[in-house]
Amino acid sequence: MDDKILNMFRSSNGEFISGEDISEKFGISRAAVWKHIEQLRKDGYEITGEPHVGYRLTGTPDKLIPEELSYKLDTKTIGRKIYSYESTDSTNDIAHRLAQSGSPEGTAVFSESQSRGRGRMGRHWVSPKGKGIYFSFILRPDVPPAEAPKITLMSAVGVALAIRKITHLGALIKWPNDILVNNRKAVGILTEMSAEVNTVSYIVLGIGINVNTHRNDLPKEATSLKAEADGEVSRVELAREVLRELDRQYRVFNEKGFRKIIDEWKGLSHTLGEEVKITCHGRKIEGTAVDLDMSGALVVRLDNGFTQHVTAGDVLMVR
Amino acid sequence: MDDKILNMFRSSNGEFISGEDISEKFGISRAAVWKHIEQLRKDGYEITGEPHVGYRLTGTPDKLIPEELSYKLDTKTIGRKIYSYESTDSTNDIAHRLAQSGSPEGTAVFSESQSRGRGRMGRHWVSPKGKGIYFSFILRPDVPPAEAPKITLMSAVGVALAIRKITHLGALIKWPNDILVNNRKAVGILTEMSAEVNTVSYIVLGIGINVNTHRNDLPKEATSLKAEADGEVSRVELAREVLRELDRQYRVFNEKGFRKIIDEWKGLSHTLGEEVKITCHGRKIEGTAVDLDMSGALVVRLDNGFTQHVTAGDVLMVR
Repeated sequence: MDDKILNMFRSSNGEFISGEDISEKFGISRAAVWKHIEQLRKDGYEITGEPHVGYRLTGTPDKLIPEELSYKLDTKTIGRKIYSYESTDSTNDIAHRLAQSGSPEGTAVFSESQSRGRGRMGRHWVSPKGKGIYFSFILRPDVPPAEAPKITLMSAVGVALAIRKITHLGALIKWPNDILVNNRKAVGILTEMSAEVNTVSYIVLGIGINVNTHRNDLPKEATSLKAEADGEVSRVELAREVLRELDRQYRVFNEKGFRKIIDEWKGLSHTLGEEVKITCHGRKIEGTAVDLDMSGALVVRLDNGFTQHVTAGDVLMVR
Repeated sequence: MDDKILNMFRSSNGEFISGEDISEKFGISRAAVWKHIEQLRKDGYEITGEPHVGYRLTGTPDKLIPEELSYKLDTKTIGRKIYSYESTDSTNDIAHRLAQSGSPEGTAVFSESQSRGRGRMGRHWVSPKGKGIYFSFILRPDVPPAEAPKITLMSAVGVALAIRKITHLGALIKWPNDILVNNRKAVGILTEMSAEVNTVSYIVLGIGINVNTHRNDLPKEATSLKAEADGEVSRVELAREVLRELDRQYRVFNEKGFRKIIDEWKGLSHTLGEEVKITCHGRKIEGTAVDLDMSGALVVRLDNGFTQHVTAGDVLMVR
């Protein structure tokens, strides 16, 4: 019911709605209307009341809750079902449990804070309350495990495009899966999968975006969008756009193929043309990153003139 | 204490041991000795008692319990920790939970029956009570997800060798992971993993062996060792040998490399030299299986003379 009243306010475009209209529309008492309004206010909605006139919505909370995230979201797959938490250990852990118990592709889990946010290789992901966007979502692509890196690259494209659209910052992708703003890391993407030898049963993508995080709370090499944009960024607005872009890119991946993703990725790349050092199952590779091949592998021209294709699946770090 | 008394019987090689000796050795009362003997009898141990002489062990149960499986097992990794169940949904599910909560490599889970035993591609694995060996074990190899098929091939080698040793049946491997006896399937191996894009966090191998299963209880294309050997097979003896062989092959894999496994595999192959039809992510491949390459991929000579390498990771079926 809170949801329905909220939608009524939203479609009134800021005009007053009388308590009587609400009460009639939903067949509930005036006292019940008042109770629902109070609940919405508790959830962070600013609702102004004027005697003999009614109520109107004057502000929505910047909280990553389904009511806000789903508003005009209009995606086909990603975020069709959204779970939100005030705090959790790790949104990836929750997404794994949901995937194991059959939750559909696109299910997303948000949390205002994480006590044990995970990065790649079991590293910690700093997740202070209310400052970032920390979420995980489930995909069930029909690919063998060796092709999971394609999903990582696709997700990086989606997140980078969404950041560009909302903040106008020049977000770039550091191969395979960091997003940099002004040469500092603002986003991390962790891809975890459950698979048989021949086929992925599901993938959980965990995405951490430093949105309004204070730089002092972050590792030295990291930054936040607020720090780079010189101002607060609406987390709800950005999170919605991220869901939309991920949904768009996943559709491109499924309908037009990975080649389209690669083209987009190249235009957003921070890595191509750069000197790279890659540690790959104990071996070190040094050279110039010259291309991304059709499988998503980075093509590195070594100092001896030969080129080497390094798959995202093999990489420990790029410097 | 049951364990300790059992070991005392075992090291007496069938000789009588007096209740007094047991009571003194462990500092427990004669009544307590009697209670422990009764418990062992309940667990299926045959213990004969003679007044004024003592007790002796005349028979052990063919049950897949740690006391039996661990006896003279002497492995380095596989089966160092064993869990046994009378019945479960699926030993793979339990092994996954154990792996997620940090159980070490080699941990094995046996069950006398499974209500929802899983085969590849979500197929059902028939697991009637007390007839087969249904178990799962955890590995944590340092390989990328694309190399997980190597672990499947390695396991098939271990199981085939153990069956040959105990039953003298000519078990052969049908690529990638079935074991056939007289052209019928007697063993299935299911490999499931949890991984990041770059590295496997753990693999659960589920192995189902039709040991004393009645042929009428099995699918038409399947068989049991009993049916082929014309007589009951000791499940405990076979399970122990399977753990030992898996342990041996895993050591070979880690210390000498996958090439040694391939050599062994080729000698046990049912597939090489045969006509095969392989469905591989929607595409069909037909030809003659001519080799296994260094990555574990099957080399198929097509009718047009070209050869194609098919990785176990891609395969849906071989006919």
